[in-house]
Amino acid sequence: MRKILILGAGRSASSLIHYLIRHADQQEWRITVADKDIGSAKRLVHEGPEVATGVQLDATDAEARGSLIGQHELVISMLPAFMHMDVLKDCLRLKKHVITPSYVPDALWSMNDEFRTAGLIVLNEMGLDPGIDHMSAMRILDRIRHEGGRMESFESYCGGLVAPESDDNPWGYKFSWNPRNVVLAGQGGSAKYIRDGVTKYIPYHRLFKHTVRIDVPGFGGFDGYANRDSLKYRQAYGLDGIPTLMRGTLRKAGYCEAWDAFVQLGCTDDGFAMELSANATWMDYMNAFLPGDSDQDVRARTAEHLGLDPRGDVMTKLAWLGMFSTEPIGVKGLSPAATLQHLLEQKWKLGPDDKDLVVMWHRFRYSAEGAHQEIHASLAVVGQDQQHTAMALTVGLPIAMACKLVLNNKLADRGVLLPLSPSIYDPVLDELDKLGITFREEDVEV
Amino acid sequence: MRKILILGAGRSASSLIHYLIRHADQQEWRITVADKDIGSAKRLVHEGPEVATGVQLDATDAEARGSLIGQHELVISMLPAFMHMDVLKDCLRLKKHVITPSYVPDALWSMNDEFRTAGLIVLNEMGLDPGIDHMSAMRILDRIRHEGGRMESFESYCGGLVAPESDDNPWGYKFSWNPRNVVLAGQGGSAKYIRDGVTKYIPYHRLFKHTVRIDVPGFGGFDGYANRDSLKYRQAYGLDGIPTLMRGTLRKAGYCEAWDAFVQLGCTDDGFAMELSANATWMDYMNAFLPGDSDQDVRARTAEHLGLDPRGDVMTKLAWLGMFSTEPIGVKGLSPAATLQHLLEQKWKLGPDDKDLVVMWHRFRYSAEGAHQEIHASLAVVGQDQQHTAMALTVGLPIAMACKLVLNNKLADRGVLLPLSPSIYDPVLDELDKLGITFREEDVEV
Repeated sequence: MRKILILGAGRSASSLIHYLIRHADQQEWRITVADKDIGSAKRLVHEGPEVATGVQLDATDAEARGSLIGQHELVISMLPAFMHMDVLKDCLRLKKHVITPSYVPDALWSMNDEFRTAGLIVLNEMGLDPGIDHMSAMRILDRIRHEGGRMESFESYCGGLVAPESDDNPWGYKFSWNPRNVVLAGQGGSAKYIRDGVTKYIPYHRLFKHTVRIDVPGFGGFDGYANRDSLKYRQAYGLDGIPTLMRGTLRKAGYCEAWDAFVQLGCTDDGFAMELSANATWMDYMNAFLPGDSDQDVRARTAEHLGLDPRGDVMTKLAWLGMFSTEPIGVKGLSPAATLQHLLEQKWKLGPDDKDLVVMWHRFRYSAEGAHQEIHASLAVVGQDQQHTAMALTVGLPIAMACKLVLNNKLADRGVLLPLSPSIYDPVLDELDKLGITFREEDVEV
Repeated sequence: MRKILILGAGRSASSLIHYLIRHADQQEWRITVADKDIGSAKRLVHEGPEVATGVQLDATDAEARGSLIGQHELVISMLPAFMHMDVLKDCLRLKKHVITPSYVPDALWSMNDEFRTAGLIVLNEMGLDPGIDHMSAMRILDRIRHEGGRMESFESYCGGLVAPESDDNPWGYKFSWNPRNVVLAGQGGSAKYIRDGVTKYIPYHRLFKHTVRIDVPGFGGFDGYANRDSLKYRQAYGLDGIPTLMRGTLRKAGYCEAWDAFVQLGCTDDGFAMELSANATWMDYMNAFLPGDSDQDVRARTAEHLGLDPRGDVMTKLAWLGMFSTEPIGVKGLSPAATLQHLLEQKWKLGPDDKDLVVMWHRFRYSAEGAHQEIHASLAVVGQDQQHTAMALTVGLPIAMACKLVLNNKLADRGVLLPLSPSIYDPVLDELDKLGITFREEDVEV
């Protein structure tokens, strides 16, 4: 029996654990799910009482954590980013393989040699984004290069959204992921990308104006806005010197223009506590960002200040959220961003019957045999239910599939790995395809 | 003889030291000027060889610093802000009075009782802004309140600029103060003010759009933009509950609209190193912030991207700086803000024959005997020469005058002080007035 430990039984662990349990007998796996909340851990293993156990663990308790890790062969860390280095150090010391959906912490690279020497695998960025984005991009990039194509442009976008059948608000958005990250998206500096050989920068306050329209067959139109650092994987993808490179995030068409209203007003600032009275309303909230006479109509002044059509789509979206209402805010002493988040968590809540949607879209432009060509590759996954959301499926299944690769000795490489090589992306993408998580490819003559 | 120690012989210490030397015999003062650069220290004391000495001191050397402080009665710290707490702790331990032009460090308030018990004065914010702004505002506020007026609005603006006779560039600006602070002005969060009882916020990217036009008799028109926290002195000024409160910075009329072009483009971002080739030009710099096709004319694209008249004032100002030129940038690996600063330090340099200008402007609105009234108070100081700049005069003279108050026992209060009471502002403002640093007051019926 090979023993797998999953640290963290949060939202995105459900499909991962479900897969591991289903394959436990065939793969000779025994699974332990450890969480601070023993209830969460037990709920996720109830389907596999013979093969899976839920245990309580405070992951910050180094002794308990080390003791539990020591009893397993492979660790999957679904813990928040700040806990990763502690877990990774344990795994090195106790000689365990580890898989995570998280970004490689900078401090990890300096431990690469030690992991290698110990014959251990630390497979990172193995979820959706990062994860499936790497695998699906690399598979096509490798193919183009193998066929002699020269890359001219690579663009890649991903978004966690709401499924068309559950999309019943004018924003076309509900939270399937951390609401705070959605409200603060793009902050902390200019976004960077390359266009026609020139490295370009977009300041935060222009990010949501500077969008790309993307159509995904069967799912309609989306806005793509640039990620903070589109250039991060340039080298890892073998794209040094590529003239155009952009990575971004998808929202339903129209969302970005409306979100930009909040950015322009200053509503997404997270740096100070607002001074609002205990019985302040959402109209008072908006008024705090509008210059001029507070006695005048807030709705009209918002449209005027932002140069918006008073009856246009953006104002409709703001009004739908209740930004011009006399409803009490209900929280106080928070930043503009956190106050807004409080409202959005009510308005953009994924209901018990709602399904979420994950969309990924790549565009590869290359020259081959004297002609320019494009490949568009798109993925759209609709969640199955509240537990097996599209987000949980696309984050969890690649990790689960990677367990097979690691424990069945299918990976020759050791040390700090990302899913960039065929030995990982081929089996994982093929198995995802069998489960209906399928990229649709289109060749476009240009 | 009373011995005064000045720590830091920078730009703004010249007029301070000059005043101390001139009054040394009459006041029975002996002056020591300590600086890391012994040359700077000696240059500033050459006028008073009998009464003043220049010495070398590395202010971070705790032992040398303590030993020097121990030999004096009063310490004036002109050191950078990060050194202040060390000096203040020395002064408490060695039982010395201290005067500084710097903001009160938060950590100082907890030492207030100790300074009081020791009978020591720590007089802070004793320069121009903070300094003369406090004194001139409090004198008029106290008078209005004494006469039974009820404050309805207080606005206060200050700027370090270039004198009209030396103003020979379309921006109406040259550096008389830290260039880095000018380039980064307003960053780090929304600006806060109160209007008609409502606390309002302005995000950074709207700060330079949201200006107030101010006319100073004899010096023309200025733009005022809001400081980060206009509410900071609300309580200290006795203005709790005032309906309108705004503090800000002055630039020559037209400057803010043009500076906003840099803000909108993202040129003032200090958070990342730009990727520019070694022989990059200023046109390449601008191009990095412009979306679209890099082969098209940068000047036309800048105007279009920002919605500016291609032949208007803003474009003229940008062109005058050489933003559309093929001149090499000459530095690399810096942030957008630091790269821009490198250019501005050349273009906005105060020449050897140039004079600087300090402008301060307050507007007090109040009701008295059933009528609304306004007082406008303005100060405009032109520098004498390269050494006795308006900045050096207005920062240094109030500190020098405060030395008389402290050493002649004119101040009854002990502990952490700001120049908010008549015992400080009356003698200092009266003496500044005699030296031609005079506020001009105007009563306006409204």
